[in-house]
Amino acid sequence: MDIQNCLQEKRQSIENALVTSLPVSQPGAEIIYQAMSYTLLAGGKRLRPTLFLLALEALGQEDTKPFLPFACALEMIHTYSLIHDDLPAMDNDDWRRGLPTCHKAFGEAQAILAGDALLTYAFNKMLQLRLVVPADNLLAAIDFVASQAGLQGMIIGQVLDITKSNMLLTLPELQEINKYKTGALFAAAVLGAAYLLGADDEKKADFTVYATHLGLAFQIVDDLLDVVGDEAKMGKSPGRDDKNAKTTYPSLLGLEAAKEEAKKEAELAAKALKNWGPAAEPLRQIAIYLTDREY
Amino acid sequence: MDIQNCLQEKRQSIENALVTSLPVSQPGAEIIYQAMSYTLLAGGKRLRPTLFLLALEALGQEDTKPFLPFACALEMIHTYSLIHDDLPAMDNDDWRRGLPTCHKAFGEAQAILAGDALLTYAFNKMLQLRLVVPADNLLAAIDFVASQAGLQGMIIGQVLDITKSNMLLTLPELQEINKYKTGALFAAAVLGAAYLLGADDEKKADFTVYATHLGLAFQIVDDLLDVVGDEAKMGKSPGRDDKNAKTTYPSLLGLEAAKEEAKKEAELAAKALKNWGPAAEPLRQIAIYLTDREY
Repeated sequence: MDIQNCLQEKRQSIENALVTSLPVSQPGAEIIYQAMSYTLLAGGKRLRPTLFLLALEALGQEDTKPFLPFACALEMIHTYSLIHDDLPAMDNDDWRRGLPTCHKAFGEAQAILAGDALLTYAFNKMLQLRLVVPADNLLAAIDFVASQAGLQGMIIGQVLDITKSNMLLTLPELQEINKYKTGALFAAAVLGAAYLLGADDEKKADFTVYATHLGLAFQIVDDLLDVVGDEAKMGKSPGRDDKNAKTTYPSLLGLEAAKEEAKKEAELAAKALKNWGPAAEPLRQIAIYLTDREY
Repeated sequence: MDIQNCLQEKRQSIENALVTSLPVSQPGAEIIYQAMSYTLLAGGKRLRPTLFLLALEALGQEDTKPFLPFACALEMIHTYSLIHDDLPAMDNDDWRRGLPTCHKAFGEAQAILAGDALLTYAFNKMLQLRLVVPADNLLAAIDFVASQAGLQGMIIGQVLDITKSNMLLTLPELQEINKYKTGALFAAAVLGAAYLLGADDEKKADFTVYATHLGLAFQIVDDLLDVVGDEAKMGKSPGRDDKNAKTTYPSLLGLEAAKEEAKKEAELAAKALKNWGPAAEPLRQIAIYLTDREY
């Protein structure tokens, strides 16, 4: 199995699903649908829905097509968080994925509403699995995703990120923020799959460890790209963390040690699934693949 | 039955439930919990959760206590919408329920996040009914609430409100905006109860008519209070609709005709439940009660 092909294939099926994932416009309110699809369909790695699909496969679910609405929901939640994080009152970013950010293209009011709408619609989307899995499993999965998107995850991460943005952080403090900000939605993706399929507690525990380390690895790589990446490649302004005086892994550890840290976390992620069979191979490899690149 | 006592009693039980409705703060992120409770616990009529509880009773559910988390969720969704609507990029309001608005008290970033967190947590809250009603009923209820809060309701109402805010509207146009903006969450309240209890289609159809007319009656009264209310009584700045050059019922119809219109809508709401038994009496009376006041 070639991991790059595997990721490419998943990404393509997610892109196809995303294109038709939003409902038809209400007359007179077209702008909100435009603002929603503008950011939702602007590309990106589609990492969260990919992790979700790979987690289903790792748990023995071969036909993942009926689960695509849930995959889209995860990307909608991620996209809503990007739109709101980019707002002038938050990170104040003008560029995202090579395009003007949502509020730059549609104005702040529509960007706030587009984020709200994507978050709300994500729940409708998850509920489209009502005929696919047992109702109790779906309720448990949605409950978990909401927690990880909210007060046990992403929102707390953003709050900590804002309140501590001008402080010099220690490594454990930085890791805690990233655990909430990035790791939580990674956990929503793989454990969401586990809840939907009614996986046992041992499997869930492994996925929890996996998501935590993968989230940390991913965040370190993101920080590294911010330092060394060039604008054309990334579609956003490099050095913006530095501009905002944020503590990052490279600023805290130095470039080389940060790269080592990313590899260490990636290995810990892969190791969490070491007792799983060959169906979990892409999840193990994705961790290594994400950290094994040129900076 | 005295409708005022009935409303007061419901409101008190909702207030009690709201006070303990949010989870305990994550250390370091206290500000988001403060911003959330600040607006959630700032009073208000608690009309949506009240309608929800009365709808349960109208459908024969005598013990409504186990349903209080769902009632709280409806108030959280309403509160999130107020916080975001008040933002500078939206209606730019400084006062709400006699207090500085959330962004005035906590800053814009925390207000955006507090709204996001209330919306997200509302889903966790609804899911607390997993042991109270059949799983399929709960899934249907949550799906309906999400639609009404989102692209089939509140968000579309806000989009139309913004895009048409400087136009002179016709009565049907104004009614369409209000149907989405206010009526949708009223529908979520009464039909949410119907879905939870697995009510038949006829009952749901009656509730749909009821919610539409009640929403319109309520919005007209709100517009009237904005013209003639005094700031102390209302806790927000009267005349702000005028300031924003918005079309309102009084500006369109004149004061007296607007009062008549409110009464007409209230009567249509009550009439929608005319074949229901005595348990629906508070729902019938609440419509009349809301419109039968001094301006």
